[in-house]
Amino acid sequence: MPVLLAPDRAPALSELLRAADTVGLGCGITGAPDAGALKIAGIGSLGSAGRSEISFLSNPRLQSQLDDCGAAAVILRPQDWEAYQARHAGAPPWAAVLCPQPYLMYALLAQWFDRHRQAGLPKGIHPSAVIADDAELADGVHVGPLAVIESGVRIGAGVRIGAGCVIGAGSSIGADSLLHARVTLYHGVHVGARAILHSGVVLGADGFGFAPDPRTPGAWAKIAQLGGVRIGDDVEIGANTTVDRGAVEDTVLGDGVKLDNQIMIGHNCRIGDHTAMAACVGVAGSTTMGRRCVIGGAAMFGGHLTLGDDVHISGGTAVTSDILKAGRYTGVFPVAEHAAWQHNAAVIGQLAQLRKRLRAAERQGAAGTAGQPTNHKQDA
Amino acid sequence: MPVLLAPDRAPALSELLRAADTVGLGCGITGAPDAGALKIAGIGSLGSAGRSEISFLSNPRLQSQLDDCGAAAVILRPQDWEAYQARHAGAPPWAAVLCPQPYLMYALLAQWFDRHRQAGLPKGIHPSAVIADDAELADGVHVGPLAVIESGVRIGAGVRIGAGCVIGAGSSIGADSLLHARVTLYHGVHVGARAILHSGVVLGADGFGFAPDPRTPGAWAKIAQLGGVRIGDDVEIGANTTVDRGAVEDTVLGDGVKLDNQIMIGHNCRIGDHTAMAACVGVAGSTTMGRRCVIGGAAMFGGHLTLGDDVHISGGTAVTSDILKAGRYTGVFPVAEHAAWQHNAAVIGQLAQLRKRLRAAERQGAAGTAGQPTNHKQDA
Amino acid sequence: MPVLLAPDRAPALSELLRAADTVGLGCGITGAPDAGALKIAGIGSLGSAGRSEISFLSNPRLQSQLDDCGAAAVILRPQDWEAYQARHAGAPPWAAVLCPQPYLMYALLAQWFDRHRQAGLPKGIHPSAVIADDAELADGVHVGPLAVIESGVRIGAGVRIGAGCVIGAGSSIGADSLLHARVTLYHGVHVGARAILHSGVVLGADGFGFAPDPRTPGAWAKIAQLGGVRIGDDVEIGANTTVDRGAVEDTVLGDGVKLDNQIMIGHNCRIGDHTAMAACVGVAGSTTMGRRCVIGGAAMFGGHLTLGDDVHISGGTAVTSDILKAGRYTGVFPVAEHAAWQHNAAVIGQLAQLRKRLRAAERQGAAGTAGQPTNHKQDA
Repeated sequence: MPVLLAPDRAPALSELLRAADTVGLGCGITGAPDAGALKIAGIGSLGSAGRSEISFLSNPRLQSQLDDCGAAAVILRPQDWEAYQARHAGAPPWAAVLCPQPYLMYALLAQWFDRHRQAGLPKGIHPSAVIADDAELADGVHVGPLAVIESGVRIGAGVRIGAGCVIGAGSSIGADSLLHARVTLYHGVHVGARAILHSGVVLGADGFGFAPDPRTPGAWAKIAQLGGVRIGDDVEIGANTTVDRGAVEDTVLGDGVKLDNQIMIGHNCRIGDHTAMAACVGVAGSTTMGRRCVIGGAAMFGGHLTLGDDVHISGGTAVTSDILKAGRYTGVFPVAEHAAWQHNAAVIGQLAQLRKRLRAAERQGAAGTAGQPTNHKQDA
Repeated sequence: MPVLLAPDRAPALSELLRAADTVGLGCGITGAPDAGALKIAGIGSLGSAGRSEISFLSNPRLQSQLDDCGAAAVILRPQDWEAYQARHAGAPPWAAVLCPQPYLMYALLAQWFDRHRQAGLPKGIHPSAVIADDAELADGVHVGPLAVIESGVRIGAGVRIGAGCVIGAGSSIGADSLLHARVTLYHGVHVGARAILHSGVVLGADGFGFAPDPRTPGAWAKIAQLGGVRIGDDVEIGANTTVDRGAVEDTVLGDGVKLDNQIMIGHNCRIGDHTAMAACVGVAGSTTMGRRCVIGGAAMFGGHLTLGDDVHISGGTAVTSDILKAGRYTGVFPVAEHAAWQHNAAVIGQLAQLRKRLRAAERQGAAGTAGQPTNHKQDA
Repeated sequence: MPVLLAPDRAPALSELLRAADTVGLGCGITGAPDAGALKIAGIGSLGSAGRSEISFLSNPRLQSQLDDCGAAAVILRPQDWEAYQARHAGAPPWAAVLCPQPYLMYALLAQWFDRHRQAGLPKGIHPSAVIADDAELADGVHVGPLAVIESGVRIGAGVRIGAGCVIGAGSSIGADSLLHARVTLYHGVHVGARAILHSGVVLGADGFGFAPDPRTPGAWAKIAQLGGVRIGDDVEIGANTTVDRGAVEDTVLGDGVKLDNQIMIGHNCRIGDHTAMAACVGVAGSTTMGRRCVIGGAAMFGGHLTLGDDVHISGGTAVTSDILKAGRYTGVFPVAEHAAWQHNAAVIGQLAQLRKRLRAAERQGAAGTAGQPTNHKQDA
């Protein structure tokens, strides 16, 4: 069950909407005269919200969930509110909050509740943290228990460093960034402002670079990785995601990049602004990705590739060559009942041969029915 | 080499079998009169076990490994023992332990040795741990060095918290759970009794939720994740696996769920009781999985899907639509020598066209050999 | 931007080449008489290196990048230097360093700069580390802040243990190994000499072993994992990679094995010497891999498989049966524009049927054009 505010700290609905609407969406409360005074302690879904929660209808197809909704208030578009009224005689038990973009308003409300929660978190430098004498911490920096900040680190104003984080020598973190517990930055890693780094993130581990070792046949000699990692502003990186340092130059993530959990970005990669990747994606070394790309979960990218701007890759797809043109790309073997898969997969290894046989059958057919055209390009 | 008990602490075979057999399988020792007094310091495989180890035959096809087995004792089914005797004149150098279910008896013995090892581990609260004043720790809780327990946490009786763990504010852990070193729970994460959480596990990181930011074209606005994580009893979660917190409601793992290493469970997912997933599986947000599902390694699931009970997914399969019917499902491109793969994969991009051409060839053939039936459904 | 040495600590070019060339490649400096005295503070790429950096040309196709190169010196093969001179009238602004193997010389230089950086790192045992009284630390061991070393651990000479590492009871680490921050070794894990373990690595978590629990239908009983992990010399393991302990015997990595980030090696696996795996690979339990295998990123291996020596698996390939013969193997669904993929993927589920229809069409064609041979093996 989500954590709710204590009743005495819950804001009134009208006050909450005003405080949360930082982008000027504008919301109107419809309902009983005192609806604006309802105390709102949290957000719930249409199906589960209780009398102290606000909910929202963002997908008009879920209209029917309004019928049983037990929330104090529901955010919805004016046209959905009209549709509700057309279907119901009396007033609903919830106050209607009319808003042109309910999902965005929900996002703003969620941010408000999260800011409220964060305001209650501990502040200052925990005495158990180990901080190098020459590290520079700006005003209002929080360092949690048992964090380690090495020599030459620079931390911007308002940054929160969670418990057990390790910030390597000479690295830097921009203002108002949030590092959850147990994030690791190696040396020479530079993170911009307003970053959110989740637990288990590792930035700046060595890229995977080896050359054949001339002294031992079959053995690999390590190529020390001398570059760093450079991350723009407004980047979020999910739990246990790793971004390796560059071999010679830096590995670079642009502004507004969003990485989900368990992603691996290889050395020397350059990821364009506002590109978002769902969980479990792997990007091999030296691949460049454009701006505003959207990468589905568990997609995999070979090394030294180039992706253009606005390329969307479906989840589970392996990309092994450049994709320069914007659009959506997919390569996934369709799932089937196991026995059916076995039958069909067995044919995969004969496809080139089948194509040849089809060609021969076409020729025979053409010979057998002379004069009938074959309406396709010949291929082999 | 596995760690063995010191000789003076090794139990006698008969005593060990009695102590380990907590489910009443019943085992009979056959062999020399003093076989029950043999000292057993550990468990070994048939091929490697030494004179102070017990081994087991669970797969009858491995019968031949009994011939060279150097173990002190071997657990096997009565019928396999008879088969051995039929093939050999003399008595083996090992004592035969007759048991209807050797693999289960092995599991029980392994648990016994593990309990014995754990009994020797340090107890109590390590002075270097950082524990909030208002955290509630029940009797017999162990907290390892440099662990952090934040405000409002509740820890059940007999729980072991490993070195370097971080337990976020307001979270709770049920009795007799075991957290290995360096596990992270965010705030508002609730774990049931008898859980085993391995190193690097992260529970409760933010789900991956964004809405288009109206202020910057192409940019993403974060949707704060206000739900929590709720995990049933008897759950095991492998190293570096992550389970994200819900957006509004909780992400839920049922009782007896077993997750291997490096798995990612997205926000709002609900995983049914006793479902087991092998390593590297990814489940995108808001997907619901039934009870007793078995998911092979590296299988991937899209978001907002529903899987029924008793669905088995083969390793490496990408699931992109609902699967409600119990059974086994697969979708994996068959591996082949690279050159053969290249030839056949090149045809994949022409399959729709080939189907069309086959249809045309069938028509031509039918025209050319009028009267011969075509014995299939036409498709395109 | 990569970290460079301060100008007063940068070595002269001739001195640097002599110190770095530990394998006797032999490099000759061509250029102005005082070229050997140029101060070199770091390594840069041909496109970005500045006046205090050395660069290298390893791929002759990048010759044209020499034209605008701003480096102090460039390592290149004699024949590439001749080609440059043939294309240019005057001397370049950089000193030419002639070397038969520029990429290897670059690797050696990178190692030199990295050794130089490491020489400046803190030494000794940080007072905040928690070290068991009976742990044995050889000479010159460094233990970073807030690391934990449990009972009975043995650490070889010159080992560096990073901040926040946890070394479990009875484990051992060979001489001159480097553990970056936040590495976890469970109990009974043995690592050879000169290992490099990156942040988030977990060695020795429980393998994923369960038997049906006879007391609860559908439930799983844990099989305690009593084996350990044994890792040879000269092994590197990337960030957040996990290697599980064996069920009965040890999980084994041979000498010179190189694992990239986010890899999962299941229990009881045996990986042969000098085998290298790119990121995100998963190997299920009890699989044996030969020597000098090369595994592409995100390849996945079923359990209980055997791979021979010198097997190369392409990235993204799922391996579900033994591969004993050396060579390269692939199994990846080709990526395509989404609409094209949809059309072609829909045919996958009909392949067995299409093969049958083709066979029928061939028979009809043969009947219609009697006397024309069909030149292929019949399959169904």
